[in-house]
Amino acid sequence: MKVILTGDRPTGKLHLGHYVGSLRKRLEMQDKDDYEKMYVMVADAQALTDNFDNPKKVRDNVKEIVLDYLACGINPEKVTIFIQSMIPELTEYTFYYLNLVTLSRLERNPTVKSELQQKDFNKSIPVGFLCYPVSQAADITLFGATDVPVGDDQLPMIEQTNEIVRKFNSIYGETLTECKAILPDNEKAFRLPGIDGKNKMSKSLGNCIYLADDEKTLYEKVMKMYTDPNHININDPGKIESNMVFTYLDVFATDEYFSKYLEEFKNLDELKKAYQKGGVGDVKIKKFLYNVLNEILTPIRKRRQELEENMDYVYEILQKGTNEARVVAKKNLEKFKKAMQIDYFN
Amino acid sequence: MKVILTGDRPTGKLHLGHYVGSLRKRLEMQDKDDYEKMYVMVADAQALTDNFDNPKKVRDNVKEIVLDYLACGINPEKVTIFIQSMIPELTEYTFYYLNLVTLSRLERNPTVKSELQQKDFNKSIPVGFLCYPVSQAADITLFGATDVPVGDDQLPMIEQTNEIVRKFNSIYGETLTECKAILPDNEKAFRLPGIDGKNKMSKSLGNCIYLADDEKTLYEKVMKMYTDPNHININDPGKIESNMVFTYLDVFATDEYFSKYLEEFKNLDELKKAYQKGGVGDVKIKKFLYNVLNEILTPIRKRRQELEENMDYVYEILQKGTNEARVVAKKNLEKFKKAMQIDYFN
Repeated sequence: MKVILTGDRPTGKLHLGHYVGSLRKRLEMQDKDDYEKMYVMVADAQALTDNFDNPKKVRDNVKEIVLDYLACGINPEKVTIFIQSMIPELTEYTFYYLNLVTLSRLERNPTVKSELQQKDFNKSIPVGFLCYPVSQAADITLFGATDVPVGDDQLPMIEQTNEIVRKFNSIYGETLTECKAILPDNEKAFRLPGIDGKNKMSKSLGNCIYLADDEKTLYEKVMKMYTDPNHININDPGKIESNMVFTYLDVFATDEYFSKYLEEFKNLDELKKAYQKGGVGDVKIKKFLYNVLNEILTPIRKRRQELEENMDYVYEILQKGTNEARVVAKKNLEKFKKAMQIDYFN
Repeated sequence: MKVILTGDRPTGKLHLGHYVGSLRKRLEMQDKDDYEKMYVMVADAQALTDNFDNPKKVRDNVKEIVLDYLACGINPEKVTIFIQSMIPELTEYTFYYLNLVTLSRLERNPTVKSELQQKDFNKSIPVGFLCYPVSQAADITLFGATDVPVGDDQLPMIEQTNEIVRKFNSIYGETLTECKAILPDNEKAFRLPGIDGKNKMSKSLGNCIYLADDEKTLYEKVMKMYTDPNHININDPGKIESNMVFTYLDVFATDEYFSKYLEEFKNLDELKKAYQKGGVGDVKIKKFLYNVLNEILTPIRKRRQELEENMDYVYEILQKGTNEARVVAKKNLEKFKKAMQIDYFN
């Protein structure tokens, strides 16, 4: 039976990119009820690998992330939400996995490579950051996860995990299970670009729409969105490629929203054709997108506010989930150490 | 007050090199009673960093090492003997320390560099091996060790540890204590060469005299020792430089042994002069060295045999020590995680 594990690094509130890229998928999986266990991990220890000098940021965002989860509809009755650093067994797994991975293999990891380029580590790569794929392998295998929902950029991590699993099993005997990546169904959803149209949504680039944004902020952000810089007069033909409003509408605008907020068009295809021909202004399409997004985000925002006023309940869920995860971790670590013959006094 | 921490990797029985280089010093420290705590760690987790594919070897030698400790006179009433892998807090420290160390810093470590050259890892350096100085920093700091007896080849490890301590304290607030290396007093004792005279004693080179060797084995090994290849006839002048028998006598032969086993000389100086002049045969000096070593090793050997017949007692000591170490580890980890702000639910 399936064991599903996902998670997020608590370095900022969750945004629409997370919603499209992973949260919606999780909600869908959660409600399928075809799994043995489903875990959602707040990866604070991993966040510290490149935020080690800002522990307060990580700590504060643990709370924000859990609020976002619950506000979106992650159901703590079905899903075990836990804090990574509270599961010390993860560091034991990581420690022993480091013996099974070579430096050159880590340096070859494409995800790590491109992340190293983005950050300004230069020659001073923190070893913890370089090793985070090994720590991810620990996350996945400690809980015996079989299904790991990820974006396509994370595929090398799954590969690295399965390499470790095979190496461990070949040395210490069949103990660990390989996992498979669960990719988003919708190709477009892999990475929602930021409102600037330049990169994927990222806190550091200031191009995010957060799940927690209020109506006014949402409106302002949609109004600032990158469209077609040559579409100056309403009657000019407009480009829909690289036009963020259309990129977002592609993801969110189902036909029912048209009947509700933009009756003059039946669906997105019609709107696109009209925009390309000329005669549809940017303000019109932006207002429409705002309405669509606001309808999606309003219940999330409302639920989030309610939860914020009841933080005791939120911490209770987090503690309960962490305790549950710990029980599994302890049990599996026992088998792990037995296989490695480091189970003394038994 | 002093907290002393030492240890050995359980990859083989302890030999005369260990006795001279570290065990004698430990016994001396143990009996000074000027410390708060003294720990001796069986570093199985560290041994696994370059023996990960041979867990049985490591496990079997945990027992051998503890037998050697107790046989030599390490007193479990004074000293806490524990197994590294049974203290999971060490992997938590290691995990978070990895964020504070850069890859280039690790690659620059002179001890690691020279060990990498000795081993045949080529380009496939296991990351665990590369990171073992960080794991050592965890060993030292988790127990708040202030005094770490080491050979001079281990000085870079102490430096690395103190760098981590300073970095940790500067980011997370004063939490950890720097340590200092305690070097052997006797210059000659730094590294006892093997009986082949080529390298330091090392199991893999087959040039060791083990504490557990029986009389016959000891005799044969001393008789095989490298002396002066040009000292063919008794009356030829002999060289004492690079002559292993004299190297060993320098370390072990006090005057009292002369009156007991080689009355014709008053002390080592006299013997050296006579050997250099010519007239003293290699068999004579070897027999003398055998008698000296046998007198030192006989009580150790005898005690070891007694203990081997009472392994329950040995495991009891090991378990008691490990439990004691765990109590300290848990307490210190709590402060550590509080400083890092990863102490949730408190």
